Amino acid sequence: MRDVAVIGVGLSAWGEVWKQSLRDLITEAAVNAVDDAGVEKLDAMFIGCMSGGLFAGQEHIGALAADYLGMGPIPATRTESACASAGTAFRTGLMAVASGYHDVVLAGGVEKMTDVDGGATTRALAAAADQEYEAYHGVTFPGLYAMMAVAHMAKYGTTREQLAMVAVKNHRNGAMNPHGQSPFEVTLEQVLTATRVADPLRILDCSPVTDGAAAAILCPLDMVSRFTKSQAIRVTGSGQATDTIALHQRKDICAIESAALAAKVAYDMAGVGPGDIDFAEVHDCFTIAEIMVTEALGFCEQGQGGKAVEAGETALDGRIPINTSGGLKSKGHPVGATGIAQIHEIVTQLRGNAGGRQVKDAKRGLAQNMGGTGASSTVHILEVI
Amino acid sequence: MRDVAVIGVGLSAWGEVWKQSLRDLITEAAVNAVDDAGVEKLDAMFIGCMSGGLFAGQEHIGALAADYLGMGPIPATRTESACASAGTAFRTGLMAVASGYHDVVLAGGVEKMTDVDGGATTRALAAAADQEYEAYHGVTFPGLYAMMAVAHMAKYGTTREQLAMVAVKNHRNGAMNPHGQSPFEVTLEQVLTATRVADPLRILDCSPVTDGAAAAILCPLDMVSRFTKSQAIRVTGSGQATDTIALHQRKDICAIESAALAAKVAYDMAGVGPGDIDFAEVHDCFTIAEIMVTEALGFCEQGQGGKAVEAGETALDGRIPINTSGGLKSKGHPVGATGIAQIHEIVTQLRGNAGGRQVKDAKRGLAQNMGGTGASSTVHILEVI
Repeated sequence: MRDVAVIGVGLSAWGEVWKQSLRDLITEAAVNAVDDAGVEKLDAMFIGCMSGGLFAGQEHIGALAADYLGMGPIPATRTESACASAGTAFRTGLMAVASGYHDVVLAGGVEKMTDVDGGATTRALAAAADQEYEAYHGVTFPGLYAMMAVAHMAKYGTTREQLAMVAVKNHRNGAMNPHGQSPFEVTLEQVLTATRVADPLRILDCSPVTDGAAAAILCPLDMVSRFTKSQAIRVTGSGQATDTIALHQRKDICAIESAALAAKVAYDMAGVGPGDIDFAEVHDCFTIAEIMVTEALGFCEQGQGGKAVEAGETALDGRIPINTSGGLKSKGHPVGATGIAQIHEIVTQLRGNAGGRQVKDAKRGLAQNMGGTGASSTVHILEVI
Repeated sequence: MRDVAVIGVGLSAWGEVWKQSLRDLITEAAVNAVDDAGVEKLDAMFIGCMSGGLFAGQEHIGALAADYLGMGPIPATRTESACASAGTAFRTGLMAVASGYHDVVLAGGVEKMTDVDGGATTRALAAAADQEYEAYHGVTFPGLYAMMAVAHMAKYGTTREQLAMVAVKNHRNGAMNPHGQSPFEVTLEQVLTATRVADPLRILDCSPVTDGAAAAILCPLDMVSRFTKSQAIRVTGSGQATDTIALHQRKDICAIESAALAAKVAYDMAGVGPGDIDFAEVHDCFTIAEIMVTEALGFCEQGQGGKAVEAGETALDGRIPINTSGGLKSKGHPVGATGIAQIHEIVTQLRGNAGGRQVKDAKRGLAQNMGGTGASSTVHILEVI
């Protein structure tokens, strides 16, 4: 198996981007990544996208992206695992390079979410849940995560304030991120009194609907000396796992088992443990998700995720800074692109280019991307070479 | 790079399957493949699906399939390249094994197409074309392939009768396939006088709308001795290529360039040429497609595909038997499953289990799967070990 490095990253415009279409977004991110890497050609592309069909009437996303990037006729494939689609694009790209099938590979992700009305957005997102046993009966993601929050609060004593502290922390980080959709701070009071969405979750507990794309360029580690435009970062661990698609079939809805399993595989591959990670981007689609994932990744004991955020352990200057980019919460969450946007932040931090939100002495970062209520997770570990 | 073998294949019920849902179909095919291979556990899954969202309101197909197969928490990812989705699942599965990331991998595909009305089916399929420059303006796939047919007839003298002969040949083969959706013969007269769809294509020139799923089990070649329940088949070549997503941007609409490029990569990897292939399954979504792909794969000169079928060269007893399964035309075309259904036929033939449609001395077969009007193609070469 060949070792793999990231030699370039790029983002598109990000937020409510009315003037750019699906193809514009992925092309912009890809051009930025290609430019960052200083490569002249690619050998293959893998593009994460959750629902090009329901959001934009467009499938066949891989071929579309290769065409508009001007890189056809290279092989291009879309990967999908709901909101972990870009995480799977990254992992599939790793396999393409590790196997020797391809040398220089673009792993990207894109979602154009704001071209349909709110009801259609909610229905499209619900396609990540169990259509027959969840979505069909009217439950959508805020409701599902609200149930997880209520259960976590009952079982572990997690408080409404601790949930809000996740949003406050992530917006504080996100206010220093030039790529964010909501780059402003929010107060605890604002989160606690925001419009109720699904009790106990309020609107400031929820990640927004976002248009955006992200891309990363991969190549074999022993080839990085050919591409010296930007600092290369090594990928040392990759894990992926699944869980039941429906929440009610889990043995414990207070834990994200797929994240724990994917992390174990990634830690073992990298030869490290949670204590060796300097900072992490995790899938905070809702504030409760960050708390549960913090536990699943081993950054604190099971049930202690709320206390960890309250104690400032996951703050920028804490023991294990989480979501230095602002997370999905502040940076935004174009569902099919998020996994690679996380990689963008990890690479930016490891290169020391994160400005005001820079983690001191950042040598090893972890990205956790998640689909549905945790039916899919990917975990990747990246390190300074 | 590790060499890879197919150790099991399976199909679901196939056709207008009203009593089985999307998850039922992929689970049935996967169970059959697992049973054929005699494996007790899988390490990962890749599932091709073109539009779970538009056809069934269900994305997150990988996790769903792993869950209902009872194989969670293994990693499971959907791949999509329109009607070549399963071809890309197979190729991604090869990379997963070749890289050493996984040992025993299921590559599958599924589409549940008949749960929506005809208009919605047409709109969903049109998402494989260019939404902004083709689908939005009302052109759908029969119209696009009709333009290709008219151009091919004008440039090369291909006749209306030669198109019809593709359907006659494939239905003759398909009548001997127990898994087909339309297992009956048709006459030249019936094809020539069938209801017109998009001139010159008539209804019997078009593959049908189909529910179905297919699965194949892959493992490293040096591990096949552990799994002796069914005969293992070696994968010797894999190629993939793209082209412009919109037909009008091609330099020549009479040629499927992506198929030619994917074939070149696969031939080179296998160390063979078109003359070394004993039989092939190709993507005959319309009769003209088979003619153009026959040329692209090098089985005849450019422009001579019509004459090749007329001369019987692609018949079961011809120089290069094509679509012994009946092809998409007779066997049916559940778009996300077709690429693996082709692999099922190649393996069945190479094992000598094809009954009345058995190709004599079949030692090496080729499968070509295609998305859109050829914006994506995959080509795989399989051989008796």
